[in-house]
Amino acid sequence: MREFELIETYFTGWNVRSDNLKQGIGDDCLIWQSEKPLLVSVDTAVQAVHFPENATGEQVAARAFLPALSDLAAMAAKPEFFTLALSLPANTDTHWLASFARQMQSFAEQYDIVLAGGDTTRSSVVTVTVSVHGSCEHPVLRSKAEPGDDLWVSGVLGGAAAAVPFVTDFETVTDFETAGAEPDWLRAYWYPDIPIRFAQQVRPFIHSAIDLSDGLMGDVGHIARASGVDIELQIDALPLAKGLSEKGMAGIQLAVSGGDDYQLCFSASAAKRGQIEKTAAQLSQKVSRIGQVKEGEGHLSWYDGNQLIHLPWQSYQHF
Amino acid sequence: MREFELIETYFTGWNVRSDNLKQGIGDDCLIWQSEKPLLVSVDTAVQAVHFPENATGEQVAARAFLPALSDLAAMAAKPEFFTLALSLPANTDTHWLASFARQMQSFAEQYDIVLAGGDTTRSSVVTVTVSVHGSCEHPVLRSKAEPGDDLWVSGVLGGAAAAVPFVTDFETVTDFETAGAEPDWLRAYWYPDIPIRFAQQVRPFIHSAIDLSDGLMGDVGHIARASGVDIELQIDALPLAKGLSEKGMAGIQLAVSGGDDYQLCFSASAAKRGQIEKTAAQLSQKVSRIGQVKEGEGHLSWYDGNQLIHLPWQSYQHF
Repeated sequence: MREFELIETYFTGWNVRSDNLKQGIGDDCLIWQSEKPLLVSVDTAVQAVHFPENATGEQVAARAFLPALSDLAAMAAKPEFFTLALSLPANTDTHWLASFARQMQSFAEQYDIVLAGGDTTRSSVVTVTVSVHGSCEHPVLRSKAEPGDDLWVSGVLGGAAAAVPFVTDFETVTDFETAGAEPDWLRAYWYPDIPIRFAQQVRPFIHSAIDLSDGLMGDVGHIARASGVDIELQIDALPLAKGLSEKGMAGIQLAVSGGDDYQLCFSASAAKRGQIEKTAAQLSQKVSRIGQVKEGEGHLSWYDGNQLIHLPWQSYQHF
Repeated sequence: MREFELIETYFTGWNVRSDNLKQGIGDDCLIWQSEKPLLVSVDTAVQAVHFPENATGEQVAARAFLPALSDLAAMAAKPEFFTLALSLPANTDTHWLASFARQMQSFAEQYDIVLAGGDTTRSSVVTVTVSVHGSCEHPVLRSKAEPGDDLWVSGVLGGAAAAVPFVTDFETVTDFETAGAEPDWLRAYWYPDIPIRFAQQVRPFIHSAIDLSDGLMGDVGHIARASGVDIELQIDALPLAKGLSEKGMAGIQLAVSGGDDYQLCFSASAAKRGQIEKTAAQLSQKVSRIGQVKEGEGHLSWYDGNQLIHLPWQSYQHF
């Protein structure tokens, strides 16, 4: 199939529009015009690295799109448009491609984000690079945590990491591969529920935020170093995915150092607890207070109750 | 090497800044603020498809960056910032990576475009996706060619396509592989000279433009169909790369259907000939008038002098 036919067949006619997009697919560049700050993040998903070779088109679309969307949530941005760079083997099955495109269309319509440009190339390895663009008058940075802040997290943690042995033939991260996979874990791995609306609505009440992509330990470390603060976390306060609390420290490890949660981790003044909980309740969004920001120099410490504990794990490394 | 060390080591400290970039590398998203229209294009370069396996770091950087920059030239945009999604094998040589990064830095400084974000992942195949962002108050579209316009092209054509047999082990596009490669061809293939300043300065005098990436035939066809006009081209007026005029129709074929020229093809009223030639002369930019826009419905016709001729070739297909 020719590039232009491919685009025409699978990637046009979606029911998403934006008045600020003056030119979409069909010229050398897309044209965007808006006075609002534009937020941009790019994420790549690679076959046999981010998804197994037998992943469905829907699954690959999700593994490529949702992590990028999560970066917009991390700064409380409203999704606006995205580009899609798609590298596919010459023998790619058209049904696979159609299901990939349908899932992308579904995301575009669900999150009201326009597919505005892209590139299609051949490759021996399915590779999908999604570049998302959002807008926000007052983006939330990871560098603005303040001593005295509560540390919060949305949703539950560790489910995606717990699913890894069941969905991939890559290195495993748990020692209980032989147990059955909870459906919640598989859903968390393939279709994480990005708190994009919650992030926008809670924005006025919070100081800093990051999305949990590399694991809580690594990502909270980013907040601490970028903000020049220490952060104390309570492992007994972590909202574990279904079935993980029965796993003892192996379950805690998944929540602390497993990646791909795509939940929002944020800090806010203790005076805002009521407004944060109310905002969360209005959206049926689970939130948990899991730590405290202290004066310091970028260090994390972990507590179980009042007991300071040492966690020997590392967060996910990309490369 | 860890992702953060990699970025810190190779992709920071470049001497390019922009007041409109409120947040660059280091948070979940970059933040861009400007009232000007933003133009965006994304291009992917894949090992063994767009460059051979033994390409140097500099060569791969060039094959990834310059085609994207060319899309900004095609709309007469000023380069502003770019993102870089880089997928590399785990055993990538650090000298290779350093030379790749140095070349990217060199382009960034030469074209005054800030590296503002990116993603690094593992892959068995080197894959580089560059997303360029530029600004322009009045972008030039491919859809605005008008009957009566001259058709122009910058630079010379066919050199990159002529180089292909000498630089790759892919399918060849010429029947004279055994001849020696002109240095001009190799330079045109690896380091095309993007007419980005010329495009910005000639913008007030032209109606439509496109960059020549898939070959003159295909790209002028895009102008014709997008504008709803016919276009007559003179093969005897084509500015052939050095050594191609001696090749007869094989040389013409490279200029007409070979890809990767990354020259600017544009249309303008005949009344603007003087201003276009003056602008080109000021920048020592070669330009040639190669055709005429007519009323019509998107068709091309080719002439050798007054003789209508049939060209049986096709332009490059990506997929």
